[in-house]
Amino acid sequence: MFSRKMPTVKFTYFPAKALGESCRLLLAYGGQEFEDYRINPDNWPNIKPTTPFGQLPVLEIDGKKYAQSLAISRYLGRKYGLNGADIEEDFLIDQSVDFINDIRAKAATVQYESDEALKEKKHEDFSKNVYPPMLKKLDEIVKQNNGHVAAEKLTWGDFVFAGMLDYLKVMMRRPQLEEEFPSFKQLLDNVYALPQLQKYLAQAPDTEL
Amino acid sequence: MFSRKMPTVKFTYFPAKALGESCRLLLAYGGQEFEDYRINPDNWPNIKPTTPFGQLPVLEIDGKKYAQSLAISRYLGRKYGLNGADIEEDFLIDQSVDFINDIRAKAATVQYESDEALKEKKHEDFSKNVYPPMLKKLDEIVKQNNGHVAAEKLTWGDFVFAGMLDYLKVMMRRPQLEEEFPSFKQLLDNVYALPQLQKYLAQAPDTEL
Ligand SMILES: N[C@@H](CCC(=O)N[C@@H](CS)C(=O)NCC(=O)O)C(=O)O
Ligand SMILES: N[C@@H](CCC(=O)N[C@@H](CS)C(=O)NCC(=O)O)C(=O)O
Repeated sequence: MFSRKMPTVKFTYFPAKALGESCRLLLAYGGQEFEDYRINPDNWPNIKPTTPFGQLPVLEIDGKKYAQSLAISRYLGRKYGLNGADIEEDFLIDQSVDFINDIRAKAATVQYESDEALKEKKHEDFSKNVYPPMLKKLDEIVKQNNGHVAAEKLTWGDFVFAGMLDYLKVMMRRPQLEEEFPSFKQLLDNVYALPQLQKYLAQAPDTEL
Repeated sequence: MFSRKMPTVKFTYFPAKALGESCRLLLAYGGQEFEDYRINPDNWPNIKPTTPFGQLPVLEIDGKKYAQSLAISRYLGRKYGLNGADIEEDFLIDQSVDFINDIRAKAATVQYESDEALKEKKHEDFSKNVYPPMLKKLDEIVKQNNGHVAAEKLTWGDFVFAGMLDYLKVMMRRPQLEEEFPSFKQLLDNVYALPQLQKYLAQAPDTEL
């Protein structure tokens, strides 16, 4: 008898959720066994040249390498039936994901500012002028979509949000973000209560972001 | 007789290529008549609140608004048959597009640095340490794909590259980028020689970026 061999899957990222967690959650959702390789940052210089773009995360399926966190998330989402029903719904997911990524990118310009004085100034400015309208908009979207980022249903976009939230909270210095916005809490619950994720979640190491 | 009415399409952006041109080129490729609305920046404060995320570009199809330049480009690409043949090819397009977007984001941190001294310092640093490996990688990808960003054929990802190149050249201060990298020139030619684009290109206003 022939049988379809389960592919060998390895997911490499730093010991953090940040840009990698959506992929881990999607693999878990898909019932895909995978090596959850969280590198020791000291080891990064050795690993860096083996990656497609000199960056992580990288997913390997039977030795074939996939890079770029959002591209990987979309790919896994489609593989596991978490895409939209048509190009209109797929567009709405992509639109929300790109907006979440805009929020991440804004917060990252603060987080990775090396001049301490400038960093504090930027943080104050963004906390007053940049984050509030963005978060308000995201809250509206999640409310309109009944606790999801798009299409009023569970999609891979929800995994991107859920995977990235702790990172956003740290960068924005808003540890209560999902208490501030109950719609975010609802979205998180919609992902983290999925039965498919429980085994992964029970054994995943705790990380701050 | 019933006939399918051509939708009313309006594309709104600043008078620049930058994040908007891939969408204009894709609409032209699809044979879609559209209002190419290039706003007067003085008018932006009035238009901003009418957009989904307070930003441009925005595409309107029969009054329905689409935002986020990459999400729009993917959507139009799928509409006009410029996507991949399967999820593997679609992934490769997305991966390359996200990498091109990483290059844009890096260059943008220089371009939009308001402190002039810091801006020059960053420009020197990035020109020496950041752009060269990224451009080398992109060159490799385009060569491997025979003058395309992925899948060895014309896809919407090529339109993203072509539409964004002048913007990259200005931000990186490398006006000869496609002479430095003949693969980029080949990619540009693969897009700009398309017969479907000639009418649009003949009448599109000249812009630096
Ligand atoms: N656009 C890429 C960005 C990846 C990225 O920025 N990775 C960071 C970690 S979150 C990295 O590998 N940094 C180490 C380095 O660049 O050497 C993605 O979404 O995957
Ligand atoms: N992620 C968005 C970014 C859009 C964006 O940054 N738009 C800029 C112009 S290139 C803008 O609207 N700036 C004016 C503003 O933010 O008020 C996209 O790709 O569409």
